[in-house]
Order: sequence, then structure tokens, then C-alpha cells
Amino acid sequence: MTASPWLKRVVAAALEEDLGRGDITSEACVAADVRAVGEIVAKAKGVLAGMEAAAEVACQVHEAICIEPLKSNGDPVEPGDVVARVAGPGRAVLAFERTALNFLQQLSGVATLTRAFVEQVAGTKAVVVDTRKTVPGMRMLQKAAVVAGGGHNHRFGLYDAILIKDNHIRLAGGVAQALERVRAGAPFAAKIEIEVSTPADAELAADLGADIIMLDNMGPEAVRESLARIKGRALTELSGGVRLDTIRERAELGVDLISVGALTHSAPALDLSLEITEWTR
Amino acid sequence: MTASPWLKRVVAAALEEDLGRGDITSEACVAADVRAVGEIVAKAKGVLAGMEAAAEVACQVHEAICIEPLKSNGDPVEPGDVVARVAGPGRAVLAFERTALNFLQQLSGVATLTRAFVEQVAGTKAVVVDTRKTVPGMRMLQKAAVVAGGGHNHRFGLYDAILIKDNHIRLAGGVAQALERVRAGAPFAAKIEIEVSTPADAELAADLGADIIMLDNMGPEAVRESLARIKGRALTELSGGVRLDTIRERAELGVDLISVGALTHSAPALDLSLEITEWTR
Amino acid sequence: MTASPWLKRVVAAALEEDLGRGDITSEACVAADVRAVGEIVAKAKGVLAGMEAAAEVACQVHEAICIEPLKSNGDPVEPGDVVARVAGPGRAVLAFERTALNFLQQLSGVATLTRAFVEQVAGTKAVVVDTRKTVPGMRMLQKAAVVAGGGHNHRFGLYDAILIKDNHIRLAGGVAQALERVRAGAPFAAKIEIEVSTPADAELAADLGADIIMLDNMGPEAVRESLARIKGRALTELSGGVRLDTIRERAELGVDLISVGALTHSAPALDLSLEITEWTR
Amino acid sequence: MTASPWLKRVVAAALEEDLGRGDITSEACVAADVRAVGEIVAKAKGVLAGMEAAAEVACQVHEAICIEPLKSNGDPVEPGDVVARVAGPGRAVLAFERTALNFLQQLSGVATLTRAFVEQVAGTKAVVVDTRKTVPGMRMLQKAAVVAGGGHNHRFGLYDAILIKDNHIRLAGGVAQALERVRAGAPFAAKIEIEVSTPADAELAADLGADIIMLDNMGPEAVRESLARIKGRALTELSGGVRLDTIRERAELGVDLISVGALTHSAPALDLSLEITEWTR
Amino acid sequence: MTASPWLKRVVAAALEEDLGRGDITSEACVAADVRAVGEIVAKAKGVLAGMEAAAEVACQVHEAICIEPLKSNGDPVEPGDVVARVAGPGRAVLAFERTALNFLQQLSGVATLTRAFVEQVAGTKAVVVDTRKTVPGMRMLQKAAVVAGGGHNHRFGLYDAILIKDNHIRLAGGVAQALERVRAGAPFAAKIEIEVSTPADAELAADLGADIIMLDNMGPEAVRESLARIKGRALTELSGGVRLDTIRERAELGVDLISVGALTHSAPALDLSLEITEWTR
Amino acid sequence: MTASPWLKRVVAAALEEDLGRGDITSEACVAADVRAVGEIVAKAKGVLAGMEAAAEVACQVHEAICIEPLKSNGDPVEPGDVVARVAGPGRAVLAFERTALNFLQQLSGVATLTRAFVEQVAGTKAVVVDTRKTVPGMRMLQKAAVVAGGGHNHRFGLYDAILIKDNHIRLAGGVAQALERVRAGAPFAAKIEIEVSTPADAELAADLGADIIMLDNMGPEAVRESLARIKGRALTELSGGVRLDTIRERAELGVDLISVGALTHSAPALDLSLEITEWTR
Repeated sequence: MTASPWLKRVVAAALEEDLGRGDITSEACVAADVRAVGEIVAKAKGVLAGMEAAAEVACQVHEAICIEPLKSNGDPVEPGDVVARVAGPGRAVLAFERTALNFLQQLSGVATLTRAFVEQVAGTKAVVVDTRKTVPGMRMLQKAAVVAGGGHNHRFGLYDAILIKDNHIRLAGGVAQALERVRAGAPFAAKIEIEVSTPADAELAADLGADIIMLDNMGPEAVRESLARIKGRALTELSGGVRLDTIRERAELGVDLISVGALTHSAPALDLSLEITEWTR
Repeated sequence: MTASPWLKRVVAAALEEDLGRGDITSEACVAADVRAVGEIVAKAKGVLAGMEAAAEVACQVHEAICIEPLKSNGDPVEPGDVVARVAGPGRAVLAFERTALNFLQQLSGVATLTRAFVEQVAGTKAVVVDTRKTVPGMRMLQKAAVVAGGGHNHRFGLYDAILIKDNHIRLAGGVAQALERVRAGAPFAAKIEIEVSTPADAELAADLGADIIMLDNMGPEAVRESLARIKGRALTELSGGVRLDTIRERAELGVDLISVGALTHSAPALDLSLEITEWTR
Repeated sequence: MTASPWLKRVVAAALEEDLGRGDITSEACVAADVRAVGEIVAKAKGVLAGMEAAAEVACQVHEAICIEPLKSNGDPVEPGDVVARVAGPGRAVLAFERTALNFLQQLSGVATLTRAFVEQVAGTKAVVVDTRKTVPGMRMLQKAAVVAGGGHNHRFGLYDAILIKDNHIRLAGGVAQALERVRAGAPFAAKIEIEVSTPADAELAADLGADIIMLDNMGPEAVRESLARIKGRALTELSGGVRLDTIRERAELGVDLISVGALTHSAPALDLSLEITEWTR
Repeated sequence: MTASPWLKRVVAAALEEDLGRGDITSEACVAADVRAVGEIVAKAKGVLAGMEAAAEVACQVHEAICIEPLKSNGDPVEPGDVVARVAGPGRAVLAFERTALNFLQQLSGVATLTRAFVEQVAGTKAVVVDTRKTVPGMRMLQKAAVVAGGGHNHRFGLYDAILIKDNHIRLAGGVAQALERVRAGAPFAAKIEIEVSTPADAELAADLGADIIMLDNMGPEAVRESLARIKGRALTELSGGVRLDTIRERAELGVDLISVGALTHSAPALDLSLEITEWTR
Repeated sequence: MTASPWLKRVVAAALEEDLGRGDITSEACVAADVRAVGEIVAKAKGVLAGMEAAAEVACQVHEAICIEPLKSNGDPVEPGDVVARVAGPGRAVLAFERTALNFLQQLSGVATLTRAFVEQVAGTKAVVVDTRKTVPGMRMLQKAAVVAGGGHNHRFGLYDAILIKDNHIRLAGGVAQALERVRAGAPFAAKIEIEVSTPADAELAADLGADIIMLDNMGPEAVRESLARIKGRALTELSGGVRLDTIRERAELGVDLISVGALTHSAPALDLSLEITEWTR
Repeated sequence: MTASPWLKRVVAAALEEDLGRGDITSEACVAADVRAVGEIVAKAKGVLAGMEAAAEVACQVHEAICIEPLKSNGDPVEPGDVVARVAGPGRAVLAFERTALNFLQQLSGVATLTRAFVEQVAGTKAVVVDTRKTVPGMRMLQKAAVVAGGGHNHRFGLYDAILIKDNHIRLAGGVAQALERVRAGAPFAAKIEIEVSTPADAELAADLGADIIMLDNMGPEAVRESLARIKGRALTELSGGVRLDTIRERAELGVDLISVGALTHSAPALDLSLEITEWTR
């Protein structure tokens, strides 16, 4: 498909916050007819993501910019790798630079961190999934970057899946009440997930027909007991404070899914830069 | 002023990506007339930022939500500190939760990291400044978070200050050509900054009347020599790969400004959560 | 919650297409200080829907219009029933009239038709559900009107549930291939529905773990055989050319869901009008 | 002209409500490189309308979709007629399907119903015209569909013609007062129409120079007397509860225009479907 | 009504182009809690217009700004007259200042120039009307300013009245062909105006039933002859190069309308300023 | 670059206010397949500006319109000069006409008036600069037109430069307080300008390090004394009531900049028209 409306909007907003009324430096010091070729180069090891956003930036900045991707989302990159090449009017290439790099750095950072978590659980049945703890405005792109890194997506928002959390349970009056209400009132096409914090509640949730049970902030013993009580009647998701150095032992407990907020809220940027390699005056 | 148009747009976009057609969980399991009071609680030590965004989220989610800030942007927080209290219809509080926290966590992360850098340079004349390496769509808020953390803002975009970088110099034909063109063509109300990588270019830039000279990726010796050649004729900005453990020695070289991209592109989120403390059914 | 962003947008678009640069008739013949009270009156028997849209129209037309609903969405109405009362500046009441009525008539038409279908299946286990065959731009409101009429909502769009239809099966290479691919690649939080047209495919879909099986355009015998082969392993949805006079016999076959496109694409408007009952000059 | 801004907006809104963050079924079960050709086929007899909207849907869904119309707006169609052919990436064709059909079905429904009314008045001087009783957001397209069906358009909104209705007359203080005010204050380029319910008022309106006189909900005798009193000094429009089986006798009374709200508020959809006829994997 | 959508949009665009990311001067030098009262003062003699725009600027800049109009649109003003008083947070009053004045100066300029033309034709039957030669984006407000100055509005755009101009006549093949086509195809609720440049064409237009005939760029003799041939069968509009010192003699020829493009394309601004008269620190 | 987002928005708004639902005259009297070629011709002597806006109008009106500029922004034009040629569907050329001309006339008016001021100061060191007294919505284009006329741009809005005006000084408590606060709190990349009205304040401002000093509404003696006291330590800007017949003597006082609000708030339109020269039926 052509760039989806939300990608167009995200990119337009990013460009507008950077360009405002125009790039007064380039207008003053780069002649209008200078043409330039630039390379986007990785300065660190990681996993690439965000190429669709970089391409849309090029597309919106100038009709005459040509961008040739040399790597794809999900590809590993090493320092020095040329990730893409852009060519076009010099002023346009300079206007493209920062906004495109900002997308690529943030999203490759997400993909790189995801890949690190995914590698830790290799060989277990656990799948690494993201959360709704995303940077405002960037959710769709961050979720795509999680996939590029080898992770899976949890729901995209409050609208596309049921997840009964502690605060819902409180307001509904308990696990049983919450699940009963949801089974009565939720759209029939939605799966039902519930967050529990004790093995007893985990068993209750399974008894009441939850499709997915999130074991929230439980220690290893409680997780094991919960799995034993659920007996495969629901998918299980482990959640809460999972770190790179702890995910493997969690995965070996036998859960289906492990969700990690840090993938999207705390991924450091992957260093990339744009170097102009050829130009004509 | 009322929420600025860009704050309204950023918050609206964030809410829309989370809420979509509505929160199907709350609609199914929380009765429409339940009212709730919640507390936003810090789970880690840091510096608060983003309260204006959280307030705007409340404002857009429901007219009957009341948010009472107990801390202000720039305040230090400790684990357990209640940062704000929200009260309103239970469903609205739940819809508010994730989007408000996402803003607070990201922006408090920026303020916290900035504060760490600023504390390192205490007692020197150096000022910590941000860059345009921001998360797309979040620039205005991130720059406000840098200020909350004690840093200063560099330009907001390509439109509000002149900064001649390596790629401009390349396309213009050299430092002298770039500076001459800019002095002829740039708006008279804009200061002129130029990025240089050798002491010779730093001196040339000062000779040609640059207002600010950025010493990019220079070693300590080169910085010292540059300062000696510039002789106070321009503000000096040190830039490139500055880390928490290296900023102090850089600052002691005597530069005016040190810019740190990581403040906005790699700040880990500050952990905060919303706990519902009272409710009526 | 306050009017959701999409409701605000739908109402704004409707008002703009009617008002354009202003109501030149009222401006010419109604003095600016005339105040008026009007009643929205049902002219036919049916079920009310769309009051939230009418209220939003009032809200956007003039800050001083006051609308008092006397009936709620889902209420039955008889000819002569006063459904709501509006009061405010005369010109504003006149500008409100047509757009508010257009929403109420269309949506009450949907609720009325839905109620008629729902009454036909009373006593069976079948539930009447809507489709994506909606009037462009009105989907959210039409789906709410279906609920007001006693029906249930199927998915809201292509984004919030899996439904493998004939064209997907064709492009995927068959029922088995389609289901396998979807089970591998779809979000784990989404239920999987598939459309089949033979009992053999129905059984195959159940064998492969489909959550919901749509029996499309099947005769009674084929439906019965499909149900026998599915053996309760999935929800069943009957679809295709269901009419008011045929839905009962379909429901008695024992399916869980019956979807009816006509609810939203062919509901005749419910007749309502606005009569000004008091005014001051 | 290129698609007008309002057509672009209407189509964008329709696509967004259906696609949201994407078509999760096609993404999961149709490979990205599958190409498909589909045919839009009429399943019932009627009159085509909405091809410009379907083309705009194609245009917005994917740059590589090609749509070839085989029928034009206003053409009669029979069951089995292929109305258009689309070709492009398989996922894009599937995303195009429902939204394009929703436009075509609704608008062809309007054109088909209009044609039925127009055929009833053949041979009389009466012209069938639409009203402002349209589905919110669809007015421009519905009015184009009325023309495709052989009808004529009344005003497009409150802004482009004067029509003094019963509520205006009430607030203005009577027929004479309303007409006098309008003649004094209305734009000189606008024709003046007034709604009357008695022959006496019809004559008064003609005496006061109304350009068009709407005879609202009058019986045949009253219409005849009104025409006799107006004596050709104004165009006459008959309005109110006109049905397919009553329009002919109304037309034979000799009025110039007959307006029918049902054309746009109660037209049942014309059945059309998209069948994929060729594909490559 | 509340501010119409287009007024909100025009004001929002104007504020955004002035405020951008914020008023960096006030933020730096005016404390956040300073309150101020300012007066908008006329510095020249003229006619006021644009108060609705100034009020909307206040409304959008800050919820706590209070604006009290002391003069209304259409009122004459003398140098020193206080036109409105604003009170609120000092920073907000400063942000309000320039954008509000820009609206008031431009629109009062239009009203002032219109009044001058209107006074010239006093006592004749001629009415001064505007054209579509407006400043892009300002048409609605400029047309309201023309009315404030005592002029009348011609059509608002290409959509709300028929005006056949020289280029249409050329493309249609002549006056007769153009008029015949328009009578056949135009909406029945629209009046038909045609531009002619000879008395013969004026007569032809009247013969063919034009409602309004524009005599374009004709000398006095040709105007007189045209009026004689039209014989009151249509409204007459004189157009083309009419100046303040020539409009009277044109009016005395007996035409109904005289259109003047300069009202909206060349009105010099009326000088107004905002003076802060009280403040608290 | 491609048309910047704000240019697209300004042009879209202008087209929408003129076209609304469409050009009912052309649709009625020009056949859909007529093609036309038109010339935009200058009817007066002046300086051209606004060609980028006219091109964008063409682009938005119809994909098949071709516009060939024969003059560029900044070029002098004489009556009769053909400024651009357009070719395309006849209806599209007619829809293009008025909106394109409105941009060209307004902006060429600004360029023409600017050129007149600039010619007056030839040979002095003074530069003519614009102000923020622009027509709402047109600022970017008007500032480009000032440059086309040979003037220079002052700041674009409140966001991109510091200018402390009389009202700020009042609220800050005096010239010294205002300057001190600004030096402490303003972005380091922004130059600081201050408005003063006495030579003493001018000297104080220079002492306190202002980068630019605006001498507001001072007589020649006061200007001379101010310059003597400033001693070249800051750029000087003369402002206030400068007219074409007084600017030369002001310039000869030796100031660097002279700002003229009339350039953008009171420039009369340059007369241009579109003539259709060829067409095919």
C-alpha cells in the first residue's frame, strides 16, 4: 500500500517541527541548483528499522529526492554499513537528514533492543512481546520495529483486545465479577486476557474461560504454581520488570509470552549518520 | 496560555492511537457510573517533567476528570512520591492512565538524564544543551523537559537559527565560502553558528565573525588550541560523543556550551504508575 | 467521556456541508435576538438512536443551545412522542434542525430495523450482528445504533479481528493454507474467523482451530450438516441474504450468530421532525 | 478536475474507519507479492452511481492499483454486469473492496430509486428534485447520484439559496413579514423560495415576488387552487410524503418541481460485489 | 452562533504563523503571573470591522483573556477612540496583540474604503457591491467588512451564483449559446448573471432571460444605451475600473449595482494599536 | 522542495473558499471536453511575486493543468507583459483563474511597493525590512514578496527572534530589567533586539549588550543622537510612520535598517488578468 494515513501524519508532524518556515541555513549557504548524494551509515552494531519512515520523509521533503535502501527493516548492521543512499537537490537532502535519522535511530534502537531480548530466549517456547508503554505518537512504528527485531505485538490499543488489569478488577469488584461482565458485554470477536497476581486467581481465571492469563510481577514459584493450575487452558503471559539478564530464567519457566515495556519506552537510539559523498556545484 | 495548538495535537494523536474507537475492556467491565480516584506514583528516583501533557490528556479524555498536580516539572522525585492525583469517572481515569503515563515517563526520563549531566558540570561555566536529535513529534515537549532538568535549549528547528554543519560546508565549498554566503543571505536577526573540526577552522570562523563556534568531535588538545585561537570572540560549543563520565573533563576545558544528543534520543523512561486508591460503585 | 474525536469530526463535517458560509435564510428573516424552543417529534413508530450525535450538533452549532433529551437511545417511540426539546437563539435552533434530524432519522432507522430482526429470533440462541456494509463515514454511529436496537457488533474494521473470506482463501491457496498462515502470523490476541461455503470446509476449519466459522450462503441442509461436523468447537455465524421473513427459520437451525448487512446499508429513515413551539421576538 | 477536496476527505474518512492500523487478515494470510484482478459485479438491477468515489478509494489505498470503469454513473445495470475491473497487489485489492463497495452500493441505491421516481413522471412537465434530508457526510455524493438517476438538485445547503420554511415564518411573524425581510436583507444574487400550506398564502407569496413557491403537504384541490392563484408568476414545487405510487397523479396537477426526501434518506443499497478472478502467487 | 468553523480556522492559522512554538520574548522578560489591561486605540479616522475575529483571537490565545468591545463593526471611529479593552495574563495579552490588530487593521481598512464609496453614491439608487477579488483566505471576513462599511455582497464563490463572464462566453461559443446552456443546466434555485460589453449583447441577454446583466468596462453612452435596451427586465451591474472620483457619475447613469474590486484587494489598513494601560507585578 | 506544507494549506484554503462545492457556471455552460489556453497578463507596471502560489493553485485545481511561467518572482513587469501561460481543461482553467490572480495581485502589490521603497534608499547603507503587520494567513508569502521586491525580512513571528517592545518594557519594569531578564532567559542562539524611544534608552540598551536597537518614532535629531551614543555597538533599526516621500531622509541619518509596515498591510494590488487565447470545442 502507499504510505498509510497515520505514517503520513507522523512524518508530516516530524518534518513540520523541524522545518517550520524553512531551513534558513541551507537557503543562505547552499545554492539552489547544487545536487548531492548522501549515504546513511551505521555507526554502531544493531538491527535496522524505520526505513518506511525514512522513505516517507524523502517523499514529503521533495519530489525529486530519490532514496535507495541498501538494507531492509530487520537486517543486522555493523559500523560502517551503508544503510541507504539518497540523491537529490542539496538543500532537500539536508532538510531530509535530521528527520530521517531521528526516525531511523529511534526505531533501530527499538529493533536492536528487541533482538537482544529475543536472542536470550532462543530455544524456549517463550515469545517476546511489546506493551502499550510506547513513546506518544510513535506506537505503530515502534510496534513494527519490535517485529523487525523478532518480537511479537501485543494489542495496539485499548480498542482491539480485552485486557483486564488490576485497576479494572478493583473497579469491577474482583476477578470473577470482571470476567463475567466482560464475557457478557465484550465483542464476541475479541479474545479475553486478564492480569492476575496469585496462582489462585490464575486458576480462577482459567476456570472462568479467560483466553490469555497475564502473570504479573510473580516470583518463579508463583509462576510455576500458576502454570500448574492453568493446565494449558489459556495462553500465559509473564510480565513485570523483566530484564535482559533475567529473561532467560523466566522463559524457562514455560510461559508462552513475556512482555517487556523497555523495548519501546527505554531503547537507546542506534547511532546512524548521513554523509554527503558527492555533489555538483 | 491555554494549551498551545501543538500540545493539543500531540496529545490528541497519542490518545487516538491508544483509544481508537474506545476502550472495550472498561466498557465491558466497569459500570458507567463508577467514580475513581487515582494517584500517579513515582517508582524510581528522578526529575519530573511532562505534567502539562498529562493535564492536557486529562482535559481531552473527559470534561469531568480533575487532575491535581502535587509536584511540578523540574521537581526531584523519590520512589513512592505521589506526583499527581486524578479523580473522575472510572472509565475515563482508566483511559487517561496509559497515555498520561507514557508522556510522563518519557519526559521525566529526559529531565532525569539532563539533571545527571548538569550535575556533572556544576561549578564550571559550561552549560548543557540539547540537539535536534529528538524523538519525532516530541521535540517541543522534550526541549521543555531538558529545561526542567536544568539544561538549556539549542535551536528548535532548521528555521530559528543558523547552524552551518559539515555537510553545508562541503556543499558551499569551504568554511569561508559558507560563512560569507550566510552573512550575506541570512536573516539579520539570526545568530550564526558554524561547526568546525580543526583549530585552524575555528580561528577562521572567529575571524569571519561567527557568533557561535561548535567544536565537533575534537580531542582535548584541539579544543584548548581552538579556544586559544578564538580568544573569546564567539561562544564556543563542544559537541560529539559526550558521556556522563566524560562531560566534566570536557567542561573544564572552558567551553561555553556542551551539547548532548543522548538527552533526547536515548533517555530511559522514568518508572511511574497509576494506582486507583478510591472508588465508588 | 466527552464526545470522542471521531464523533466531533463526523458532526463537524455534517454541519459544514449544510451550513457552509452560513444560513442565508435565517440571517435575512429571523432577527438576531429571537429565542426559540423546539421539539423533536417522532412521526412514526420505531426505536430511537443517535441522541449523542444530535447533542453534539447542538454543542457545535451554538454555545447557548440547550438540548434536553426526553428519550434515550434504544427507547421505543410512537408517532407524536417528543424525543427531545431544544432551546436557544432562533437562528441557532434553525441551523441545528436539519443536521440533527438527519443523524436521528438515519440512526433511528438502523435501530428500528435491527429491533425488527431481533424480535424475530426471540427465544432462539441466535444473536443478530451487523457487518462492515455501512454507509461511509457513519460506521461507529451505525454500530452504536445496532446495539440500541438490540443487535450485537461484529468487528469494527479490518484492524480489530481476523475474518478470512472467500477472496482471502483464493489468494492464500485454500482453506487450510489460509488458516495455517493466519495462525502463524496473526496477533495472538485476535480471534480467528473464517468464511466457508460447504460442510466439508466447515469441518476442516474446526479441525484447524478456527474460533468462529461463518457459514456463507448455505441452504438449511448444509447448515445443519455443518453444525453437526463442527460439534461446538467454534462459534457459528450464518450469513447471506437473510431477510425479516426468513431469519426465524435460520435461527432455529441452531447457529450462534446471524449477520445482516441490511441493518446498516438499507435501513429506511425513521420520520422525525422539529417543531418550534415557543418563541420570543 | 482532480478529486475535489471534499471527495478526498470523505473517502479518507471512510478508509480510515475501515482500515485503522491495517488489514490484519490480509497481512497474515496473503503474501505481499501476490497480485490480483477483481471484478465489481452487479447482483441486482438498477442505476450505477459512485464510480468517482470508488476510483478515489483505489487511488488512496495504493498507488499501484489500477481501476478500469466499464460502466459510468447513470448507466443501467443488470445482475451479472461487470461494472469495473481492478488490478493490483492482492492485499490492496482486498483493502479496496469493502469501502469501494459501500460507496457504490449506497450511491447506486440513490440513483436507482431516483430513476424509478423520474420514470413515473415521464411526459409531465414535473421534475424530480432532492432535499437536504441526506445521510450526514454524504450530501455531495448523494446529490450527484440523484443527477445520475435523472433527478435535479435543490439547494446544497443553507448557504446557497433562500428557502423560507414554516419555522422561519413562525419566527418572522408571518408570510408577508418573512418575505419582506428576506427581500431587504438577502444577497441580490439568490432566488427566494417560500413554503406555504394554503392557496391564500401561495397567492400572497406570488404577489410579494417569491421566485419559487413550495406547496407543502397540500391535497390535490389545494394544489390546483394554488396554481390558479399563482398564475405562472413563480416556479412551483410540490413537497411532502410523495411516494412512488402517488407521484404521477401529483405531477399531473401541473407543478414544476416535486421534491422527494426518500431519494437520499431511505434508498436501499444496490447489491454489488467484488470477485477476484485472477491472481498470481 | 459560536465562532463558525471557518473563523476558527482562519484565526488558528493566523495565530500559528505568529506564535509558532511560543513568544520567546515575553517568556524571557515578562513574569508568568503579571496581569495586564490593554486598550485597542484607533490612530486614524475610519469604520470599524473585524471585532468578531479579534474576539476569536482572544478566545484562542488564552482562556483567561477577557475582551470587552466598546465599538461594534460598522461604527465610525476617530483617532484616540478606544475600540476595545482586553484584560488577562500579561504574556497572553502580548501574544494577542499583533494577530488581533492585523485582523482589525485589514478589515477596518476594507470597511473604511467601502464607506467612502457608499457615501459617494448617496441619493442614487446604486448599491456598492464587492467582488471575488479578495485576499486569499480572508474572503468571508472581507465580505463581512464590506457590509460593515455599508456595501452589499456579490456571490461568495463560484458555487453560489451563476455569473457568465467573457471567458465563459468564449468557451461556450457566444452570449446566446452560453445563456441557453446555463438555463438548461444550472440549478433551478440560482439566479443567472451575465457579463456583456456592448448594448447589443445587453439586449440579447435580457431577451434570453438573464436575471442580472453586468455592463463591463463600458463608457457612459454605452451604459445608457444598454439600460434603454434592457428596459428594466433585469438588474444591471456596472463594473470595471470604478474609482472614488468616478463612481458618482457612473451611479447617476441609473444602474442598480456597481462592483468595486478595490474594496477588498487594495484597501489600505486602518491604523490601530494596543496600549497596555494597567498592569500588576 | 515540493510545495511546503503551509503553502499547500494556504492555497487549499483559498481554493476552497472560492470553489466550495464547485463552479456552477462552468459546469453549466462549458462542455467537459473543451480545452483552453490562457495568458496571465500584467495590466500595470510593477514587480512580480507569487508565482509559486499560482503554480500550486494550478497543481491543486487539476492534475492536467500545465502552467508555464514566463516571468519570475522579482522581475519587473510592464502593462501587456505575459507573465505566465496556462493550458488544460477549460473548466479547470476557469476555476484556476480567480484564486491564482488573487495571489499574484496581492503579492505582486507587496513586491511593487517594496521595490519603490528600496529604490528610494539606493546608495545609502539602509536596508528596507518588513514587520509582523501582515495580512492574517499570508505572512510567509508576503515576506517572500518583500524579498522579491528587494527588501529584507525581519523576524517571521514571535518565535524566532527576541524583540522587546514598549509593552514588554512596561510589564518588565524598564529597559534595564527587560534586557537583563532576556539575557538570562532567552535561547542563546537568538539575537536580542529592543525598541527604545529616547537616545538615553538607546545608549543604555547598547551598554547592556543589545544586538539590535530599534529607534521607534524618533525625530531626526533624536536618531542622530542615538546613533552617536550607540557608537556602532549594535545594529540600528528605524521604525514608525516611514513613507515613500520620507524614507530617503531617514536613511541618510545612517541607520542600518528601516522597517515599513505598509509593505505588507497596505500594498495596493497589482492589476493582472487572465485571458483565454485559444480553445477547442
